Amino acid sequence: MTVHLVGAGPGDPELITVRAARLLGTADIVLHDRLIDPAILDLVSPHATVIDVGKGQGEAMTQDHINDLLVRFGRHRLDVVRLKGGDPFVFGRGGEEAIALAEAGIPFDVVPGVTSSIAAPAYAGVPVTHRGVSAAFTVVAGQRGAGNPPIDWQALARVGGTIVVLMGVAHRAEIAADLVAGGLAADTPVCSITWGTHRHQQVLRTTLESLGTADIHNPATIVIGAVAALDLSWAPNVEAFEAAAASAR
Amino acid sequence: MTVHLVGAGPGDPELITVRAARLLGTADIVLHDRLIDPAILDLVSPHATVIDVGKGQGEAMTQDHINDLLVRFGRHRLDVVRLKGGDPFVFGRGGEEAIALAEAGIPFDVVPGVTSSIAAPAYAGVPVTHRGVSAAFTVVAGQRGAGNPPIDWQALARVGGTIVVLMGVAHRAEIAADLVAGGLAADTPVCSITWGTHRHQQVLRTTLESLGTADIHNPATIVIGAVAALDLSWAPNVEAFEAAAASAR
Repeated sequence: MTVHLVGAGPGDPELITVRAARLLGTADIVLHDRLIDPAILDLVSPHATVIDVGKGQGEAMTQDHINDLLVRFGRHRLDVVRLKGGDPFVFGRGGEEAIALAEAGIPFDVVPGVTSSIAAPAYAGVPVTHRGVSAAFTVVAGQRGAGNPPIDWQALARVGGTIVVLMGVAHRAEIAADLVAGGLAADTPVCSITWGTHRHQQVLRTTLESLGTADIHNPATIVIGAVAALDLSWAPNVEAFEAAAASAR
Repeated sequence: MTVHLVGAGPGDPELITVRAARLLGTADIVLHDRLIDPAILDLVSPHATVIDVGKGQGEAMTQDHINDLLVRFGRHRLDVVRLKGGDPFVFGRGGEEAIALAEAGIPFDVVPGVTSSIAAPAYAGVPVTHRGVSAAFTVVAGQRGAGNPPIDWQALARVGGTIVVLMGVAHRAEIAADLVAGGLAADTPVCSITWGTHRHQQVLRTTLESLGTADIHNPATIVIGAVAALDLSWAPNVEAFEAAAASAR
């Protein structure tokens, strides 16, 4: 009897929350984005209807159409899970869906998820904050336009924290140029993670000056800053890590 | 036989990940911070040893002591969960623990968690990003010093995204002054969430000019920017939300 706006987490199926897993098991209808791991969809009850509304290669639903479906199913007093990659409020358009539901008087709630902006770097051995290296991180959409207010990338370059760019593959040369113009060194470390936390995760390490021509594919999380030199990978390799940490300071 | 650096999520016990819940059920030893909900500790096997290493009112362990314990238990080939509030790499000092383990040759892994920097605002009806309002958010430690490189708050004021301050209650007047000096309007909306996602969550709405004297208590997540005027609360109240969204644009 509620529409749940639910984060599925960054990809690794076990990084879904306990609440999200429970709601998937009891929902009447699940509307999901593309990029959701099949093991997560296995949590859905066999009696439920599953609808892929993802914007992929094929025909994608418009946001208005998705909003209409959520409202329509909500009016039928169905229990609906709107399953989104990562967290619903991190570039997930969860706010727009919530407005549509509120306008229609449909009860809804929000289930935050693990965001790829933090988890993908972690799976590549990069902590977005690290004592002595970075006390802040900014998560920013690399796309321009789309009705969003502009980001001052040159100001962002001067903040002094880690920068995590989502949806920035197409604009990475422009982003790198703006950040260098803002004062970041050309050799600032960069770590790009494609399909972060998925089994087929791909990690690429480069620098800001080489970011524009680096071989990076979607969906990518691009980490820029001193922490991107760290390689705190999940195995004993402390020499490399400590050398990187020392040079980052 | 592994030391797991595990995020417990922001507070609400059901916002823990499926993997974290599973590891708690099978660990030999659990070392946890304070502020972990008792319902999460209920997931620990009755055969496990539970150690509170939290820095609370009483005697707190130093980070070095915690690192030593993790290494010692790891050497005994025990399965250890180091349970941290939120995410291990968001001001959680997980990186330091990982270094200590790598130095000692102890196998470890990282289990990202839902961060309070996103989930606490969500539970107060504030999306950290929202189409047309904010295409970026910065999570920043409000504490000064502690060996961290300085943050340029005036540059941060000019980025154009949401600002989420953790551990900033004591310095909130200084932070507000810096952001206004950087160009943010004195009437920039602020939403502070104390004990975010916990049952006793407290939400306070104010503005940047009143932040310094606002009645805010730890542990607080302070959201600064246009999205903080939104009140996308989990009930039909669309008039207030739309009015706020319109004025935020």
